[in-house]
Amino acid sequence: MVKASFVPVAPESHFPLQNLPYGIFSTAACPNPRVGVAIGDQVLDLAALAGLFDQHVPELQGRAAQVFTQPALNDYMSLGRPAWQATRSFVQRLLAAEPTGDDACLLRDDADLRARALVPQAKVRLHIPARIGDYTDFYASREHATNVGIMFRGKDNALMPNWLHLPVGYHGRASSVVVSGTPLRRPRGQRLPAKDSPPEFSASRRLDFELEMAFLVGPGNSLGEPVSIDRARDHIFGVVLMNDWSARDIQSWEYVPLGPFLGKSFGTTISPWVVTLDALEPFSVPLPIQDPTPLPYLRTPGDGNYDVQLEVQMKTCDQTDYTTIARSNLKYMYWSFAQQLAHHTVNGCNLNPGDLCGTGTLSGPTEDSYGSLLELSWSGQKEISLGGEIKRKFIEDGDSVRLTGFCQGDGYRVGFGDCTGQIEPALTS
Amino acid sequence: MVKASFVPVAPESHFPLQNLPYGIFSTAACPNPRVGVAIGDQVLDLAALAGLFDQHVPELQGRAAQVFTQPALNDYMSLGRPAWQATRSFVQRLLAAEPTGDDACLLRDDADLRARALVPQAKVRLHIPARIGDYTDFYASREHATNVGIMFRGKDNALMPNWLHLPVGYHGRASSVVVSGTPLRRPRGQRLPAKDSPPEFSASRRLDFELEMAFLVGPGNSLGEPVSIDRARDHIFGVVLMNDWSARDIQSWEYVPLGPFLGKSFGTTISPWVVTLDALEPFSVPLPIQDPTPLPYLRTPGDGNYDVQLEVQMKTCDQTDYTTIARSNLKYMYWSFAQQLAHHTVNGCNLNPGDLCGTGTLSGPTEDSYGSLLELSWSGQKEISLGGEIKRKFIEDGDSVRLTGFCQGDGYRVGFGDCTGQIEPALTS
Repeated sequence: MVKASFVPVAPESHFPLQNLPYGIFSTAACPNPRVGVAIGDQVLDLAALAGLFDQHVPELQGRAAQVFTQPALNDYMSLGRPAWQATRSFVQRLLAAEPTGDDACLLRDDADLRARALVPQAKVRLHIPARIGDYTDFYASREHATNVGIMFRGKDNALMPNWLHLPVGYHGRASSVVVSGTPLRRPRGQRLPAKDSPPEFSASRRLDFELEMAFLVGPGNSLGEPVSIDRARDHIFGVVLMNDWSARDIQSWEYVPLGPFLGKSFGTTISPWVVTLDALEPFSVPLPIQDPTPLPYLRTPGDGNYDVQLEVQMKTCDQTDYTTIARSNLKYMYWSFAQQLAHHTVNGCNLNPGDLCGTGTLSGPTEDSYGSLLELSWSGQKEISLGGEIKRKFIEDGDSVRLTGFCQGDGYRVGFGDCTGQIEPALTS
Repeated sequence: MVKASFVPVAPESHFPLQNLPYGIFSTAACPNPRVGVAIGDQVLDLAALAGLFDQHVPELQGRAAQVFTQPALNDYMSLGRPAWQATRSFVQRLLAAEPTGDDACLLRDDADLRARALVPQAKVRLHIPARIGDYTDFYASREHATNVGIMFRGKDNALMPNWLHLPVGYHGRASSVVVSGTPLRRPRGQRLPAKDSPPEFSASRRLDFELEMAFLVGPGNSLGEPVSIDRARDHIFGVVLMNDWSARDIQSWEYVPLGPFLGKSFGTTISPWVVTLDALEPFSVPLPIQDPTPLPYLRTPGDGNYDVQLEVQMKTCDQTDYTTIARSNLKYMYWSFAQQLAHHTVNGCNLNPGDLCGTGTLSGPTEDSYGSLLELSWSGQKEISLGGEIKRKFIEDGDSVRLTGFCQGDGYRVGFGDCTGQIEPALTS
């Protein structure tokens, strides 16, 4: 039996009562960015309901008016899972079509309150959901690491010796993480015009996307105090889509020995709605078999992935419609979110509310499930069709990339909305 | 002629009238962290003088009371070089022994104001000087890169092909940057007990320091808008000492192909006083000869280094006195601060006020000038004496490391104070 909201929700909507993702929004009438929850094609304004929350959700510790009027989710994220779960439960009761508790009709049956608290998504501006203190990117898809390894080092040495023992990751650039819809300029930098040539300075000629998801950290931990893997899920607030734009020519010249830098730091795009782990729970699936067995600090009973169907779409600036160029799934990821977080903190590294941890490119096992143009075009050897005569090996000026994804329930979808970005021409002087 | 302050300054003091570094301090009587300037063994409390600044320094745009009462320098850093220079000039006049302008005696001849605005350094607590949004670490010492390269890849392939063309750098972890004096716990993690063995989980056995300096970013730039190298200095607020603690065993197992991660992210220590570029200017020296000539975006007339004499000192928890184990100099650095900043932004990456950019380990040309135990012990093959029978290859529990550095003027020093940290034993469960 699918729970229904009194707010109309189409079957293909990403935002039914089962989802309730959090975001930061503003409107022309009220330009202060504040916390909202997506429901159907509406946004529920939690700031407008702060009094109700403080009255009915004691787990918010009387802080609803403070945390829901912030221009970022960080303060709410810091409250922890009991507060998130109690809030989710209350929002579900408020939005339910059929009352299930004393407080269930507080919104449904109050036309004034509905008029103040429900805003059409078409009328809101969505902002980046959190102040991101640090951004880490993992490399957790075996298929992606293997594909890249084959291209760079050949089939026999595709996976590095450490890859099956730990979730390889690196620090990314937090300042250039932007919300879906923000255009990005093609980067310039040093690239090799040919093998063994001296480098030249130009706009990137191998601009790529990376299909990723990312979790946002909840309460976090103090310096020197690791989060054990059995507690890791309590430190994950929710999940977004992420496009880790990559300039392959800049990256391949600069990255030895300290890792990617300017090939990535010109921009990273995330989707605006943060889907909670509680909403994803019904879509849990087992992890791939991990052989060799990871060290004990990376193991906990019941650890798993989620079945999130992912799609990459592209269009040129002259096209109206996107063409789907790849389909993948979060379930192919080798290292779980919990393993990533436990590994990240095991040395004592402190995580803060709002920190962003990407999965790395989520490639699947087949050629049409690869999560980057580097893999889809096999380093520029093949062309990808965008319809008609239009082909791409890498991203051209004016092209837009859209990532989208959802979990398919019985008659409903728990979705992530989309994560889009258009590439503008490079500077010329 | 050495300019003198009415505040007594010993010849070996790091903080004469020529220096005037900025820091964040608090006192038992007034526990709000706020902006101060070091002079001799005193701190000048700029928050207590905010009214005077707003009256006499129009370049502060009437914001003295706001920027000097903050618990971080970020807002002041964002004002830009004209505000910094006018403030420096006014502080020099306020603190001068001999008046040189109408406003010069405002502090010297006002006993009440002196009592409120000058606090003995012995009575203050120093805090981290900025909220660090992003932390980048370069790898700008040719000697260090060569030494590490010889150890890892042999003499013929010591420097990677990109190294002489661009300032190699990577993103570090901002959350675990701490101020001098903060103890750090020895990290645990995966390490290889022997070549070709499976990894095991334990406390790091090859814990190291790295002698670095770092600049803090001033106004910064917008995403997509590079800072050209001739404007780079206007975006550098000042310089600190930095110890980039490194667990060599964790690092060497994890770092391929995406760079250092948990081997570094357990802690990075910076000195509390930020020395401005204006204070360093008299100690400018030419850059090392750069061959091949860098691409034009990395060249500007008059670009240079600074002659900063650096020292690394260590002691065990049983020792009272430090032993100097290495002496180096910032002047050995190959890539300038301006080159680092211009390179960092050339792809459009945005820098924000308070962002931290480290130099990488500053090793000199001789064996006693190496900036890490990895190099001093040549990967554990040699022992370093801490006096008597006490020897070290890497850092043991309870050991403290102190970095210090200064520019030697004629009868005075422009110094950085020190950057210390003690290593506590690893967690055992």
